[in-house]
Amino acid sequence: MAMKRVAATAVRAISSSESPVLPTTFSRELHASPGSKKIVGVFYKANEYAKLNPNFVGCVEGALGIREWLESQGHQYIVTDDKEGPNSELEKHIEDLHVLITTPFHPAYVTAERIKKAKNLQLLLTAGIGSDHIDLNAAAAAKLTVAEVTGSNVVSVAEDELMRILILVRNFLPGHHQVISGEWNVAGIAYRAYDLEGKTVGTVGCGRIGRLLLQRLKPFNCNLLYHDRIKMDPELENQIGAKFEEDLDAMLPKCDVIVINTPLTDKTRGLFDKDRIAKCKKGVLIVNNARGAIMDTQAVADACSSGHIAGYSGDVWYPQPAPKDHPWRYMPNQAMTPHISGTTIDAQLRYAAGVKDMLERYFKGEEFPAQNYIVKEGELASQYR
Amino acid sequence: MAMKRVAATAVRAISSSESPVLPTTFSRELHASPGSKKIVGVFYKANEYAKLNPNFVGCVEGALGIREWLESQGHQYIVTDDKEGPNSELEKHIEDLHVLITTPFHPAYVTAERIKKAKNLQLLLTAGIGSDHIDLNAAAAAKLTVAEVTGSNVVSVAEDELMRILILVRNFLPGHHQVISGEWNVAGIAYRAYDLEGKTVGTVGCGRIGRLLLQRLKPFNCNLLYHDRIKMDPELENQIGAKFEEDLDAMLPKCDVIVINTPLTDKTRGLFDKDRIAKCKKGVLIVNNARGAIMDTQAVADACSSGHIAGYSGDVWYPQPAPKDHPWRYMPNQAMTPHISGTTIDAQLRYAAGVKDMLERYFKGEEFPAQNYIVKEGELASQYR
Repeated sequence: MAMKRVAATAVRAISSSESPVLPTTFSRELHASPGSKKIVGVFYKANEYAKLNPNFVGCVEGALGIREWLESQGHQYIVTDDKEGPNSELEKHIEDLHVLITTPFHPAYVTAERIKKAKNLQLLLTAGIGSDHIDLNAAAAAKLTVAEVTGSNVVSVAEDELMRILILVRNFLPGHHQVISGEWNVAGIAYRAYDLEGKTVGTVGCGRIGRLLLQRLKPFNCNLLYHDRIKMDPELENQIGAKFEEDLDAMLPKCDVIVINTPLTDKTRGLFDKDRIAKCKKGVLIVNNARGAIMDTQAVADACSSGHIAGYSGDVWYPQPAPKDHPWRYMPNQAMTPHISGTTIDAQLRYAAGVKDMLERYFKGEEFPAQNYIVKEGELASQYR
Repeated sequence: MAMKRVAATAVRAISSSESPVLPTTFSRELHASPGSKKIVGVFYKANEYAKLNPNFVGCVEGALGIREWLESQGHQYIVTDDKEGPNSELEKHIEDLHVLITTPFHPAYVTAERIKKAKNLQLLLTAGIGSDHIDLNAAAAAKLTVAEVTGSNVVSVAEDELMRILILVRNFLPGHHQVISGEWNVAGIAYRAYDLEGKTVGTVGCGRIGRLLLQRLKPFNCNLLYHDRIKMDPELENQIGAKFEEDLDAMLPKCDVIVINTPLTDKTRGLFDKDRIAKCKKGVLIVNNARGAIMDTQAVADACSSGHIAGYSGDVWYPQPAPKDHPWRYMPNQAMTPHISGTTIDAQLRYAAGVKDMLERYFKGEEFPAQNYIVKEGELASQYR
């Protein structure tokens, strides 16, 4: 894949398509006090990889590509990957920062305690999607604004989910491991390799990512099901070709493949525990690019060992980075990766542009695109309540 | 994935949908002499995997699930995986077999010399698609009939190709290797991970598999190109959403991803040599589930090492099984597997049913489904000429 630097105009074009222009007469919801701001970004460090691609903006070294712009306006911009413990770089700045930017790929956990310490904090931005690294109730109580770049990587994640479905259904990894270990044993792969065609795939949660996944699944001639709080309108449902399942526990035993597409909330934490996994079909394949904590870690590992889950793939873990002894690293039939699906180069360019756009609006005291808000004026967005 | 035995009626249903009923008044093209036949099947051996799935019919042990049926009609049915050299099981039977069934996954190479020795041979059947393991000119000269189960695994291969495109574009394997080796380094994956959306994907050859791939690619919002001997009719082209490229060498530099979907013929053998690979975009990703010998083995390995090819994935090699020292096992950025894409359990059930159907017609002296023929009455099918 070519590694040309994307022209600044292209980044702007992405930004404006992701952030519809709002009427300029909106009231100032976010009171950015005038003057210089202290902005801290917490991203993953790229080290030797930083210079290998000029569009690699999502790392510490790339710093979202906004350093020059911020500093030229007199703001202070500190970027680090050192986020844990009392002596971390983040902790040093927590007391006087105004804005904290972080990503789900290397999240700065914003606890109630940190919020209490952060006397100047006004704005918490996610470079990407999701804010479960933040204690949202504490943020709401402190009247902070929490926002994400909604839509910035939904396509990235949906593509990645479809890849993982195919990897599991077609039993890709045992074949690849044969290649690198000098073996050739087609039978050892084929006895549990299937086509996706004709299988039943159900998504738990059907927001933007779930719908993009279903659209991409349509030509595969599967039986598509979705469970969500809200039924799609009949026209969209018909176009997507998926059937609504009001009762999650009634959908699960029908599915050959289950994909998790729900945010992590108090209601979904630990949703897939031992009992719920037992309700799935024996030999089920599960893909989870949503959040690791939606699953009971040990229950997933046990079900993979027993064969009740025949394959588990995802890029989300709890906690992140996953420790060396995380059981999902060692369970059979896993096709796991570190948290990567939403941080492709294409996604980075989109969420960097989205963060820049929100900072620009913050400095001017303008509204953000409505769909970006997670906490606004002391209230959580509806899907987080 | 559940491993219930598929009901015999389902296999029959698949068979009849793959093999449209022909008028019974057709002339006898294939003169099956009456009486008992000696049929030899060469498949891969499953060993300990044979009993793990009741639908695993494509292996030596499964024997396409037709032993009982053949033997009940007085035919002799020998099944083996031992196919190479003068002392092999196949060689023992070559002189008096009437029918040889084999698969591309573990091909019995049918040379001119073997054809000369096989005095009783009438029929060569591929359980699957492709007959490049057979010297087709020698088969035609000897007036043998060569046929495959056209369509039996086109969906299987197309799905697998899309999986491999995503694995390469999204840089899946380095992430998975981090997981199993206890690491966590998002940057080491992300610096060369992309979305498929917006990229240019070109297929070299656009027969049934190529079209199924393009249909599955459509919702990914790529720029789709195809090169083939024949331009699709405008309506189909418009529906599939791909642009015709008459000149292969003009298409190659436009493609971020190239997929090989052409049969192996005298014209395509070694088609991707050093010079042609040099015409591809630097950083191109190549997927080849067609045949290994379409590529110059060393030229591919060299281009992967230099980075001109940024990723290569496929399940076909030359020869097969790939020897332990095959360079594609060791080149960087490969996502190879043994030859597996067309031998999913679903595909096995379809091609087993298709072979049974052709044997039944052969015993009765009836025509095969027209699209199955590769050599008929001394002539090669048009795409093999």
